[in-house]
Amino acid sequence: MTGLIEARLADKNIQLPGAASPAANYVPWVVSGNLVFVSGQITMEDGEIRYQGKVGEDYSVEEARQAARLCALNLIAQLRAACGGDLDRVRRVVKLGGFVNSAPGFTEQHLVINGASDLMVEVFGDAGRHARAAVGVPALPFGVAVEVDGVFELTG
Amino acid sequence: MTGLIEARLADKNIQLPGAASPAANYVPWVVSGNLVFVSGQITMEDGEIRYQGKVGEDYSVEEARQAARLCALNLIAQLRAACGGDLDRVRRVVKLGGFVNSAPGFTEQHLVINGASDLMVEVFGDAGRHARAAVGVPALPFGVAVEVDGVFELTG
Amino acid sequence: MTGLIEARLADKNIQLPGAASPAANYVPWVVSGNLVFVSGQITMEDGEIRYQGKVGEDYSVEEARQAARLCALNLIAQLRAACGGDLDRVRRVVKLGGFVNSAPGFTEQHLVINGASDLMVEVFGDAGRHARAAVGVPALPFGVAVEVDGVFELTG
Repeated sequence: MTGLIEARLADKNIQLPGAASPAANYVPWVVSGNLVFVSGQITMEDGEIRYQGKVGEDYSVEEARQAARLCALNLIAQLRAACGGDLDRVRRVVKLGGFVNSAPGFTEQHLVINGASDLMVEVFGDAGRHARAAVGVPALPFGVAVEVDGVFELTG
Repeated sequence: MTGLIEARLADKNIQLPGAASPAANYVPWVVSGNLVFVSGQITMEDGEIRYQGKVGEDYSVEEARQAARLCALNLIAQLRAACGGDLDRVRRVVKLGGFVNSAPGFTEQHLVINGASDLMVEVFGDAGRHARAAVGVPALPFGVAVEVDGVFELTG
Repeated sequence: MTGLIEARLADKNIQLPGAASPAANYVPWVVSGNLVFVSGQITMEDGEIRYQGKVGEDYSVEEARQAARLCALNLIAQLRAACGGDLDRVRRVVKLGGFVNSAPGFTEQHLVINGASDLMVEVFGDAGRHARAAVGVPALPFGVAVEVDGVFELTG
């Protein structure tokens, strides 16, 4: 039996990456009560770091939206692990925090992070609608263009 | 019957703006258990974006404090919507995250975000005292000077 | 009777600083349910601000790791106050948010924040493993090199 969310992922041909493990004293996610806190995810794809550069200089808004979507795919991959593999246990995407590596003068961080927001609704429907903050930063680990972290609520 | 907090708002002549709706796949607030997560609010006033520029260059600390206060007014407006209109249901302002669009060399982000912190205590009294983080950023959506997000606790 | 965590602190010769009080309308920590939200802690030591400057310019990665560790010591000092002095009540370090004051081109924020992550595991063992986000910023209050905030879970 496949879960509803897994069926939707298949239906939309969305492939989740493997859930990467940080090589340090932090972990990809922590469950506390009904909440899951997922670590900031970067633009990792198949074990390779992509989208290294600044938005508004090295990447257009549209490219950066894809970068944000990739971060969100990694968030969902971690969330799946936090749910013991059953994404149907996700009751709500609660909050996303989006950090955009911004070239001087770039002020469309909100459009970039829409790439992550849109994926959440594509995958989880109305339960994917979330609170969020989107801000510019001058630098991110490995020089990536976008980092997104998240808080999620699971069914009890 | 007017609530206690609404009466205090009236008493202090504090007018909350309308609670703006984001035009995207995210929402202004999400309730999870007793917590409300409110999206990052910017310096919007009567549907217009104000305070576009950098603190320490385009705006003084005092002006930026007013910008932070405006963000906090928008947070409370969203919180009121999350409470079904009854701000007396707010048990505690839990955490504010303050992002200050900073000119090179500007290091008084904490003084700027006091504009948001002070409003919370003005409106909610001791229940308005909160944990917070205040950091500098090089850019914010629409080029605004300040963005503030928040976590709040409601009565059960 | 000394708690287990206090004994471990003594054993490892880790001295917690005094828990500093902000001189403003915010507070060092707020407890909501089982969660403690601790305000962003900077590189304060014995009432003095240390590590003022940018990582990758004024400080090496190794120096900045020590700065992050100092922020984490301050987090634990605040957490101890939130627990009424009994750190054995900490069930889990849930989430750290690390902000690194970064010189242009510096992209090793993750290595810097490891200084905070490592201390959490040194002090709390497996319960110290946490979700986290590490980002670069162009400026922090008082010009410090690192700021870290945190969410913790207490026993019921």
